[in-house]
Amino acid sequence: MQNDNILLAQLNPIVGNIEYNYNKALDYIERAKSQGVSLVVFPELFMLGYPPIDIIERYPLIVQENIQWLNKLVLHCNDISVLIGFCEFNDSNLGKKYFNSVAYISNGKIEKIIRKSLLPQYSEFNEGRYFQPAPFISAQRIIQFGKMRAGVIICEENWNDFDFFKKPLYDFDPFEKLVTEQKPDFIINLSASPTRTKKEQLLNNMLSFCAKKYSTPILYVNQTGSTDCISFCGTSRVYDKDGELIARAKSFDEDFFVVTPYKSPKNRIEPLVCGLEKTLNSQKEFSLDYEPDLERTYLTIVQAIRDYFNKNGFKRAVLGLSGGLDSSCCAALLSFALGAKNVVGVSMPSKITSSQSKNDARELAQNLGINFFEIPIKDMTDASSNTFNSIFDKVNSVWGDFRYKAPLTFDNIQARSRAMILWGISNEFSLTLPIATSDKSELYMGYATINGDMSGGFAPICDVTKTKLFALARWINLNAPIKNTIPEAVLKKPPGAELAINPKTGKPLLAEEALMPYEFLDEVIWRLENLQQTSDEMLRATFLYQKKHDITLEQKKMWLEKFAKRVQSAQFKWSIMPPGPIVDARSIVRAEYVQPISSKLKF
Amino acid sequence: MQNDNILLAQLNPIVGNIEYNYNKALDYIERAKSQGVSLVVFPELFMLGYPPIDIIERYPLIVQENIQWLNKLVLHCNDISVLIGFCEFNDSNLGKKYFNSVAYISNGKIEKIIRKSLLPQYSEFNEGRYFQPAPFISAQRIIQFGKMRAGVIICEENWNDFDFFKKPLYDFDPFEKLVTEQKPDFIINLSASPTRTKKEQLLNNMLSFCAKKYSTPILYVNQTGSTDCISFCGTSRVYDKDGELIARAKSFDEDFFVVTPYKSPKNRIEPLVCGLEKTLNSQKEFSLDYEPDLERTYLTIVQAIRDYFNKNGFKRAVLGLSGGLDSSCCAALLSFALGAKNVVGVSMPSKITSSQSKNDARELAQNLGINFFEIPIKDMTDASSNTFNSIFDKVNSVWGDFRYKAPLTFDNIQARSRAMILWGISNEFSLTLPIATSDKSELYMGYATINGDMSGGFAPICDVTKTKLFALARWINLNAPIKNTIPEAVLKKPPGAELAINPKTGKPLLAEEALMPYEFLDEVIWRLENLQQTSDEMLRATFLYQKKHDITLEQKKMWLEKFAKRVQSAQFKWSIMPPGPIVDARSIVRAEYVQPISSKLKF
Repeated sequence: MQNDNILLAQLNPIVGNIEYNYNKALDYIERAKSQGVSLVVFPELFMLGYPPIDIIERYPLIVQENIQWLNKLVLHCNDISVLIGFCEFNDSNLGKKYFNSVAYISNGKIEKIIRKSLLPQYSEFNEGRYFQPAPFISAQRIIQFGKMRAGVIICEENWNDFDFFKKPLYDFDPFEKLVTEQKPDFIINLSASPTRTKKEQLLNNMLSFCAKKYSTPILYVNQTGSTDCISFCGTSRVYDKDGELIARAKSFDEDFFVVTPYKSPKNRIEPLVCGLEKTLNSQKEFSLDYEPDLERTYLTIVQAIRDYFNKNGFKRAVLGLSGGLDSSCCAALLSFALGAKNVVGVSMPSKITSSQSKNDARELAQNLGINFFEIPIKDMTDASSNTFNSIFDKVNSVWGDFRYKAPLTFDNIQARSRAMILWGISNEFSLTLPIATSDKSELYMGYATINGDMSGGFAPICDVTKTKLFALARWINLNAPIKNTIPEAVLKKPPGAELAINPKTGKPLLAEEALMPYEFLDEVIWRLENLQQTSDEMLRATFLYQKKHDITLEQKKMWLEKFAKRVQSAQFKWSIMPPGPIVDARSIVRAEYVQPISSKLKF
Repeated sequence: MQNDNILLAQLNPIVGNIEYNYNKALDYIERAKSQGVSLVVFPELFMLGYPPIDIIERYPLIVQENIQWLNKLVLHCNDISVLIGFCEFNDSNLGKKYFNSVAYISNGKIEKIIRKSLLPQYSEFNEGRYFQPAPFISAQRIIQFGKMRAGVIICEENWNDFDFFKKPLYDFDPFEKLVTEQKPDFIINLSASPTRTKKEQLLNNMLSFCAKKYSTPILYVNQTGSTDCISFCGTSRVYDKDGELIARAKSFDEDFFVVTPYKSPKNRIEPLVCGLEKTLNSQKEFSLDYEPDLERTYLTIVQAIRDYFNKNGFKRAVLGLSGGLDSSCCAALLSFALGAKNVVGVSMPSKITSSQSKNDARELAQNLGINFFEIPIKDMTDASSNTFNSIFDKVNSVWGDFRYKAPLTFDNIQARSRAMILWGISNEFSLTLPIATSDKSELYMGYATINGDMSGGFAPICDVTKTKLFALARWINLNAPIKNTIPEAVLKKPPGAELAINPKTGKPLLAEEALMPYEFLDEVIWRLENLQQTSDEMLRATFLYQKKHDITLEQKKMWLEKFAKRVQSAQFKWSIMPPGPIVDARSIVRAEYVQPISSKLKF
């Protein structure tokens, strides 16, 4: 042992890319050695990357590889100790194929293997599908660190305190067992814990509570980076025995971070990303004050875009720019995530598109410095319309009774022609991915065109509601690397798809005319996701919108019924929605919402 | 007690539609009463429908409703006993929100509630997400049936015999505990067990084994019908104490089925659907003899289509007819599932489409009696091509270095124009769903166009490989309600998308020229899914294709590498594939394959 420093290796692995993860681990071990660090701690399952889900079931070679590379890593650990997560075969004749394990490497060999006992099974977690829960034996959790004894805990095992949680999920508390039976000098927690609204609050309070309750410091190492829809924010940290935070790593970034967990308060404390910090006060009511969560939202989406592209080998993005809020925000987020030169924005006006919209799109692109081109879709929509009329006449001969009186067909031709152009560009230029620009409010209402604006390889804002998106746009203007990129006009005009004319006004139909006020809609979504309220409960509650506008109960009931009906029929659309980053406390993103489409919803 | 008959109510519920399920249950209870039946047994979770997955987490009102309607059902059970699955709130301050429970209704009240102890967590099962496993107490599992005592088991609890399974999943066997501790006269198993290739074999052997081992009859009641990708085949049955099958209900249909479980061998034994029966010999090698599984495959897909449409409120289907195998099979399956008049097939020839293809499409439609129309897409593809050229010139100015030398862009315009027409028809005519016609072999290779042939609301053959599809087509011609509907020419011509010309032959590019021989490809898929072989193992193995054709190891290696590369890059396409029925032992269908897209696969 060289000194009493510990390196928290807060890293961003690629699931299944074992050699990549190995090289990253080795790099940090070498750097730790050169600084005389005694122990390096990597996140949960780091050799494999989190979450592997079913690939370890289908491609067991990946698991074999993670063992082989782990053994190679051991060869580099003669004079340093390492705690690293990996996937272990379950050789017994009982249970699931694998264990979610931690290797304790010391004295040039694997001294000890620790197996996870509590496996999370909810929202984005599915560990019970492939991991066998191990019996929790506290003596196996102790490693020697100089003259001190450290206890090792894996992620979920820290989340079951019977005093902290009103309804703990599991029937015993590994943390309590470990601390009371073994009395370790401090705890090391290896985690892969995704970021969600309000989760930092919970995590901070919980870790601080446990440290204080048992008068035992906790050293918590988290993964960073994103895998598809799931984003990790890093923010590894140390609490002293009084529950005081004495060290914290960066958020949303890899970090080389040396701590002395049990000693002094003199460790580095990186500032907390806003939204990780300010949401410390749990939100009990719907509010349009999204400010506390905007930095976190921005960083989550930017990291998710960057990692989805990097980890899947894409380099360039192409999206339609309508001059509206959704596409403007997507363009800004893509530009900051991938670099302006790697983004092409295409304005594809139809006869309904206003010159204001075209100008707004151009101005946005200029502000961001992304590539911008304009191409009218008239020829395509004309040809499609003619072809459609011809085939509709024919189909009408057999299905005339079922023909809609006011179909959306021609509105959708525009959206689909645009998506066709974007996919065309992705076919013509290598490693280019089209972007789906639908937002969460509109996805809830099914107000998105299949093979149109809902189409793309990734959907950056699919978990951001419209009212939050307005706030995010203003935040981006104030805080992103380039300021004031989203034109004021975009922020001021009422949202509308510009696919149809409202016969009453003679102007393009506004989204709120087709749906309901976004303020109202977003509160319905918020209540459904956060409070699981029924529509009766919502009817009785006072909405923020009602405090500002005089609406009848009849009107409110109509909107609630419209919402229920549209959510039901949107289910099959959600099933063909591309992946996008989870941002809110709940989302409709497939990685966390496992649902039957053929079902009757009721609330 | 009226007599010693038991009614197995093998029914098809709708998930979350509690009133619908209630009415179905009540109908069977009334029919049972009128026939003097003493006990009615419904499937697992019948009040709610299986699988509810996350809707019970998000919409707890549905669970409240299932309790309310269960209590209404009790009012109709004064002179009959009922075992019925329902979802129960977990009122304790520990664990998940719900139990997967069975109510035993007798003497006009709920006499007993039985809670499931073993919760499956693999492939299409995710019960641990929302259900709390209950401690298994054998005394609670006994109900009185006249002078006899019956033991109640819920689905998975029957699947853990330590002698039958080499590697049981759970550390105790509820069946053994129940039988040895309570010595019931017979066992009643309430199940919701989906159909898979080879599963009937396993189920039959396992139930027979357990009945014989403990000299205890088993009465097994299964759900029927489909929920999205997951299909249940019914086939409820009874084994006597010697493990002999003495009763069996219909497959793939609801059934009103009265049995006397412990008495005589004189119960009704419905013939087993071929594929449920003949696959009793587990397939150890890849074979093109698909015959044993074709009836089951056909019935699974037809049921899945019918239920996806019925349960989601769709009435009509529209699909493109290319004259090729995929669309021809889809048209036949749709026609038999929904009725010919509810299907529109559209031939959408481009300049590459041969007149043979057009004729084949027309002939197929005539044979099936479905509606058929032809509409050339030339105007649309011309307009798109012109627009594309114009925008590509512009994008080329910034991304010229990344332009493909031989892009697939213009091939895809054809596929996308066709999908646009189909979605147009679905926008114009009510309750009409476009169909994605991609098959499993081509999806594995990513040989499907996003927003083209891969686009639709449902993908009937997404789990059927090409060589199996040829066999299925021949089976349909021999066995479907209308014979010889798929023209011989369709079955004889080599598959090809007719999107591009092969410069070497001057004729439309064939799929096998673009990919590899389907016989070889399908064996790779089979080995990967069924044997989890690595590419090295496959290289060493002798493929069926090699027995017929002289290929070099170099050629084989090239194909395997091509497969690996294309599967990796197909991952993001799978993420936007519509749902479709699971047919094979393994599938890439989302309901059973929970996978990170951003991952490196290796085999």
